This record gives sequence, structure tokens and C-alpha cells, in this order.
Amino acid sequence: MIHSFKALSEKFEEKFSERIFPESPANLYNPAQYILELGGKRVRPVLCLMGNELFNDLEEDAYSAAIAIELFHNFTLVHDDIMDEAPLRRGKPTVHKTFGEDSALLAGDVMLVQSYLQINEVDDRFLKRLIQVFSKTAREVCEGQQLDMDYAALPLEEVRMDAYLNMIALKTSVLLAGSLQMGGILGGGSEGNLDHLYAFGKYLGIAFQIQDDYLDAFGDPEKFGKQAGGDILVNKKTFLLVKAWELSDQKQRQEITALLENDDPEKVGKMMCIYRNLKLDEWAKEEKKLFVDKAKESLEKVAVLSSRKKELEKLIDILLNREN
Amino acid sequence: MIHSFKALSEKFEEKFSERIFPESPANLYNPAQYILELGGKRVRPVLCLMGNELFNDLEEDAYSAAIAIELFHNFTLVHDDIMDEAPLRRGKPTVHKTFGEDSALLAGDVMLVQSYLQINEVDDRFLKRLIQVFSKTAREVCEGQQLDMDYAALPLEEVRMDAYLNMIALKTSVLLAGSLQMGGILGGGSEGNLDHLYAFGKYLGIAFQIQDDYLDAFGDPEKFGKQAGGDILVNKKTFLLVKAWELSDQKQRQEITALLENDDPEKVGKMMCIYRNLKLDEWAKEEKKLFVDKAKESLEKVAVLSSRKKELEKLIDILLNREN
Repeated sequence: MIHSFKALSEKFEEKFSERIFPESPANLYNPAQYILELGGKRVRPVLCLMGNELFNDLEEDAYSAAIAIELFHNFTLVHDDIMDEAPLRRGKPTVHKTFGEDSALLAGDVMLVQSYLQINEVDDRFLKRLIQVFSKTAREVCEGQQLDMDYAALPLEEVRMDAYLNMIALKTSVLLAGSLQMGGILGGGSEGNLDHLYAFGKYLGIAFQIQDDYLDAFGDPEKFGKQAGGDILVNKKTFLLVKAWELSDQKQRQEITALLENDDPEKVGKMMCIYRNLKLDEWAKEEKKLFVDKAKESLEKVAVLSSRKKELEKLIDILLNREN
Repeated sequence: MIHSFKALSEKFEEKFSERIFPESPANLYNPAQYILELGGKRVRPVLCLMGNELFNDLEEDAYSAAIAIELFHNFTLVHDDIMDEAPLRRGKPTVHKTFGEDSALLAGDVMLVQSYLQINEVDDRFLKRLIQVFSKTAREVCEGQQLDMDYAALPLEEVRMDAYLNMIALKTSVLLAGSLQMGGILGGGSEGNLDHLYAFGKYLGIAFQIQDDYLDAFGDPEKFGKQAGGDILVNKKTFLLVKAWELSDQKQRQEITALLENDDPEKVGKMMCIYRNLKLDEWAKEEKKLFVDKAKESLEKVAVLSSRKKELEKLIDILLNREN
């Protein structure tokens, strides 16, 4: 029997709710435990479990890999929040705001180490391949974060869509793809199938990011649960902003530049007006569909019974037809 | 043939001098490469090679482990320097001073990931054990760093020598011990022998730290190459300061407290006067000898031909009879 995302999510949460770190030193492990207990959708570890089930019955090893992945993901959140000076994470004070930057830095480090200890639990047969995929992915996530910071510091006109897309893929997609692949390895998937599964995850991640950017600008604030235009407010380089520049004429570019450089109380409204004039809402929907289609095609190419793919197909809907 | 520390150091340096990280993204990998190129004595990776040679001919795998260890060590330096706000490392500007804190943080992260990629090169037979020892050690080093920060924030009277010793062991000794042990695993050492080797490294590390603290206070500034009393100047909790408190009478404790709390231009001179009155120079020499003796005893217990131990015995002299 193939489990649904929700069922696997519950199974994972059960294992993950046990305390992972020792009690002492409290100033090291409490910050680590704190972020783990802030919750989250646990998409990445569940993808790992689903990657396993795509090929075979769920292995106990897949939970070890899944826990490693969720630890790694939370490590990146802790360090990213330090770099971004973010005050909130999932509506709660970030780790560095709660425990100080030094403890947050070190707690992140120990979470990364712990993720390898979790992977190390898997059967010897799979260990080397899992560490290879996991570490390559981890390196790429670091590259993505650095490129994100690089692009944040660049003037908008120097950020090209293809480079931006590559950054997003590294920063967000490769971990989804790597999670699926690690599960697929444990499920005994063949090289070719694993490649298709990886591509599925990569396209899915990009579609998800496009949707995220779309919702921040065009989403219903009621359903979305936060103020619309948050990205615009902080000059975040999103798919929309990069595309806006690409599509703009001389006059619009001047306007965008002025909005980015000056404190305009109506910045969000004015930028949204440009976005609407450029029909970026339609563009984003189409672009998202493009990547969803690519994801679906990749999944189709995985040579297993179509019944095994059902839950991953449903997942596309769960992740990509949301309005909140 | 068993190689000397110097010979292994040269062999290691040769392998390590090849660029480890890709060129791009430059802002991620240049900071990582920068600290690697600042040099250093490479004690830990060479200990790994020596641990291998204690039991068997040098394996190519030992170089992979050694590189991982040196990468890990440098990762800790980069992150520690951020936490300590240190301006200099080996006489050069620290990574975060040169490239900014965000890039230093992220470069440290990617160095830690890369260290696992290096370990992953070893033969399947050894992989799980090496990752276990390496990760346990890494976790302990994080614990040691956190305890160091905890103790730095505590009033001196609350830092007990036994707890302080434990912190030092975690912060500095376990990596020396773990490096030897990883090499020993690759050399095929038995469990019992590996335990003795680990103990050797742990005692050696503590003796080394005692010497470091001793030299900072009592060393010849000419030979030592830096200003004497640097630790005193910044109120660093050293073996000497913790011991000073333990041995002090009421009046001396008041004096120490006053020196720690107020800016006294003659702080170093006055504290050194207390240290001398308490005969801390003699105490430190004896304490160092105590741990050197324990290290030697542990090494003696390793059941291999005594000719194989010669270079590790010599290393004690190299590391612990220095005056600079």
C-alpha cells in the first residue's frame, strides 16, 4: 500500500517528536530543539519517504534519512535567519533572537553534524551513496544561499532571469529533489528512474517558488494569512521583480528603480500597479504551469506502475493549488 | 618504515595544497580557500596519518580522513572567530573581517559539508565507523565551544576546575584524540588499542592547552612571538586563572575580582604578581607533566611493537617542549 502525503507526514512526525538532542549543554541543544519544535509541513522528509515508496515498501532506513533531511533543512533556516536578520520564523521569534547569535550559529552547526549521524544509521549498502547525494545537495544549498546574497546586493538590471532561476533551483529545489532521490535510493530505484525523480523534484520546487512569489503579491491576504506585498516592501528580488524588469520599458524601469531606491509610503501599491500593467499575474500562472508540466512529464518517465505514482501526483495538487 | 611528524606533515601539505573548492560562487568558496591557505601546523591531520602508521602501512584512505579533519578544524576556526569577534588569525585578518560575517558563516558551513565528502572517499568497510567517530567528535567540539562561551559569561568563582577541564577536553582534546582514532581505524587497530590511542590524544591535548596558557603568561615574549599576558588582558578564563581562584585567599580573591572588573592599566603586571605568589608557574609545569605522563602511559598500553610508537613519542617532545 502506498501512503498519502498526510499519512506519511503523521508517521514522520511521530518519530520526529522524540527529542533528538541531549539535555546538556542546554545553551547548545535547546536552540536546536526549539526550532525543531516550531513545526512546519515537513515536506522534505516526507518526500524522502515518498521517494522510497515509489519503488518499494517503506524501509526503516528511510526514516533515518528523512530525519537527517529535516535536521539539515532546519539548520539552514537557523543560519539563514541569522544572515537575513529575520525576527520571526513560523510566527515565533527566530532562534538567534531567542538565544543570541552565537548560540544560534553553533546550534546550527551541531544540527548539521547530527544530520550525518542520522544518515549513518542506514544500512552499509546505501551509506556511501546517501552521503554523496546528501552532501552534494547540502553544498548546492549553500551555493544557492550565497548567490541569493550576491544577487540581493546587485542592482536589479544585473540580475538575469536564467541566473536567477539557477539560484532558486539551488536554494530551494535541489533539497526537494535530493530528498526524493535519497528515498528512491533506499527504495532500490535504478539510476535512470532516480534521475527522472530528481528532475521531478527540481521542477516542482521551482513551480512552488513561483507560486510563493505570486501569492505574496497577488494572493488573497485573508487566505494567505499575511500582509500582501511583503516582498515588495523589502525590495526582495522575486521571480516577479526580475521578470518585471525584463518586460519593462524605459519609463517603467525608471519608476521601478525609484521605488527600489526611495522610501515611498505607497511603494507596494505602485509596484503592484506596474506588475498588473505587465500582466505578471498571468505570466506567473503560466510559468508555474510550465514547471508543473515539466514535473509531471518527469514523473511519467519513472518506470514503475502508475499506481505507485498516484500520491506524488496528488502532492503536486496539495503543494501547488493552494491559496494560502 | 614509520614516518616522522615532519615527513607526514610534508606529505599531507602536498595533497592539501591542491585547491579543494570550486571557483564559483566566489563569495562562498574564496573565504573557505582563504583560511586553508593561511597555513598552520596541520597537527590534527598528521595525527590521523600517524594513527594509521601506528598499526599498519599508510593507507591512501588516511589522507581522505586527514583532509576531512583539517577542513573540519578550519571550519571551527572560521565560526569561532565570528563568535569571538577575533580580528586576526595566524597574523592575518580573519575570514569574517575579510569577507564579511555572512560569507564567513556560510563558508564555514560548506567546509563542514565538504569534510564529509572527503570522508566519503574511504573504503566502504571503514565508512560507517569513521563517520561515527568524526561526527561524535564534531558534536563534542561544538559542546566545548558552547561551554567555553557559557563559562566566559560566568563569574570566576562559579567555574570549577573539574568542569573547566572537561570543557577544555571537549574544545581542544577530543579532536586530537578523534584524529588519532580515525587513523587507527584505517590502520586496522583493535578496539582496545584504539581506546588507548584515544586516551593518549586526549591527555596530550590537555597538556598542550596547559602549556599554551603557561606560555601566554610566563613565556619569553621574544621566543613566544607575541605580547605576554594577552589572556590576562582580555580576562580569558585559563587554567591559570581558574587555578588562581582556587588557591587564593580572601584578600587575593578581592584583588582578582577587582582586576577582572575594572580597567587597570597595570592589570597584567598585577595579575602576574598574584600568579607568581601562588607559584602557578610551578603548578602549571607539574600539571602539564602529569598529563604528559598519562599520555605516555596510554601510549605504552597500545599493543604494537615499540618501534611503531617512536614517532608519537617524539611528537610529545615536539609539541610539549616548545617555548614558542
